Amino acid sequence: MQLYIHFLGTGGSWPTVYRNVAAIAIKRGGEIILFDCGEGTQRQFQKSELSYMQISKIFITHFHGDHFLGLAGLIQTLQLNDRENELHIYGPKYTERVVNSILHLGYFKPSYKIYAHELGDGDVVKFDGYSVRAAKACHNVPALAYSLEEDERPGKFNKKKALELGVPEGPLFRKLQMGESVIVNGRVIESSMVLGPKRPGRKITYSGDTMPCESVRGLAEGSDILIHEATFASDMEEKAAEYGHSTASQAAMIAREAGVERLYLTHISPRYGDAKLLENEAREIFPETYVANDFMKIEVKLKK
Amino acid sequence: MQLYIHFLGTGGSWPTVYRNVAAIAIKRGGEIILFDCGEGTQRQFQKSELSYMQISKIFITHFHGDHFLGLAGLIQTLQLNDRENELHIYGPKYTERVVNSILHLGYFKPSYKIYAHELGDGDVVKFDGYSVRAAKACHNVPALAYSLEEDERPGKFNKKKALELGVPEGPLFRKLQMGESVIVNGRVIESSMVLGPKRPGRKITYSGDTMPCESVRGLAEGSDILIHEATFASDMEEKAAEYGHSTASQAAMIAREAGVERLYLTHISPRYGDAKLLENEAREIFPETYVANDFMKIEVKLKK
Repeated sequence: MQLYIHFLGTGGSWPTVYRNVAAIAIKRGGEIILFDCGEGTQRQFQKSELSYMQISKIFITHFHGDHFLGLAGLIQTLQLNDRENELHIYGPKYTERVVNSILHLGYFKPSYKIYAHELGDGDVVKFDGYSVRAAKACHNVPALAYSLEEDERPGKFNKKKALELGVPEGPLFRKLQMGESVIVNGRVIESSMVLGPKRPGRKITYSGDTMPCESVRGLAEGSDILIHEATFASDMEEKAAEYGHSTASQAAMIAREAGVERLYLTHISPRYGDAKLLENEAREIFPETYVANDFMKIEVKLKK
Repeated sequence: MQLYIHFLGTGGSWPTVYRNVAAIAIKRGGEIILFDCGEGTQRQFQKSELSYMQISKIFITHFHGDHFLGLAGLIQTLQLNDRENELHIYGPKYTERVVNSILHLGYFKPSYKIYAHELGDGDVVKFDGYSVRAAKACHNVPALAYSLEEDERPGKFNKKKALELGVPEGPLFRKLQMGESVIVNGRVIESSMVLGPKRPGRKITYSGDTMPCESVRGLAEGSDILIHEATFASDMEEKAAEYGHSTASQAAMIAREAGVERLYLTHISPRYGDAKLLENEAREIFPETYVANDFMKIEVKLKK
């Protein structure tokens, strides 16, 4: 199954000509899981190759405007486009209240089911093939970071060994590969006899808005991709702390300490143009750093 | 004083790649009066030559999402950019309730004063040099059309006559031009003796969402510019009526009957691309018709 991350909004605080406010879409197979939904996210979808009709769930990191004010318009447009599937919205404390307010703005009355779920530090929501874990972020209002982690995959199949054990090529191979036992000539062949150790799925972590934060670092451990906010450059460290944000260097420290493979910086302050400065600063600490830009699309591959 | 209309969002229902949802800015001198504020309007400002910091008042036609969901983000961004001036928001029934909801979304707490005013059919709000009149529109929820009408200007100054009456060129001329009397050689010279009949200011009318509507036609009478919704082409007249909208031809009929100078079509359905079809249909009825496009800027000149 293919998995892509589409950055739909990489700016912080307010939209600029170049960056819209926070929204990250993870497309996994035919499903889109959306993280944050700043104002204008529905239009960013229109300008991307994605269809908002494929969104199954939305995770909001916190209730500052640049992270959730696109919900109302998106929800209404899905309805105008005849959505019938349920929509699940997850977020920190007050998610129910905020979603309820949004569903009652103006004359809107939802015709499809919309559920709000409040999550706390350490909560895990399980879905088909993956789960999303929430961890407390360190911001000036209740805020969560999230990681999407795929279920473990069965280990590598040892075809030679299976043949040696007398298993004929064909449907029994598939059963063993899926972790089931089979019976060959009256003898039980356990899948563990022909499978290597279980292999991890992909893991993507998104910090939302946060200062450098131990629980976000912990959540990020072992991630293929860490998407971390980097609102400011290093010379603004004091201001970053004052407003509950991180600098690019601080994001890079978190990436290094968590041992992730790649770091993408997002939530770039309107004061920075192409943000090369932030990328360069972070790379001194964590070379595999990239500044995310609107409409950037990255594939996250399964490890062999 | 120069007056420009900037179309910031000319689409209907939901944003597309080409058209954002409803927003029309009238820049009069150093002030911006905004009509409707669909989602993403603050970003449309960023992409235009206008600054949202100059907005003094906002008039909302009705509370369907595509006409007001940009208010929350705009209000918050004005605050992040240190706005201190009051902001006045006008609209139909429920304006106070909707503005109140918007001001309490998430953690936002306004630090500048925001006032909500509810208007009804025939209400007129007077400002410095112009007034805005509301008229009932014919839509499926309470909706208003608006006209911005400048105060009458003094008549043309008859310089020859003033000289004949013994008024010396200089500051007394200015007084007479402003409608004041002056005394020359002990004799009172009334401004009416040297001024022609009062001259009208500019008048711009915006329909908001409406079916062809007698009160909108009445409001539009004598307008320099009528901005009328034209959600559909003529072959969709039944659907237009069902949803409380107009076709391009119907908008043109209103323009012709109201005797306006120019008609701009807006609120174009996402189904139409460049909407040349709508323009052509309307021009058969009212030749001075133009389809408005996002970022189109038109100057409205004072008549001599």
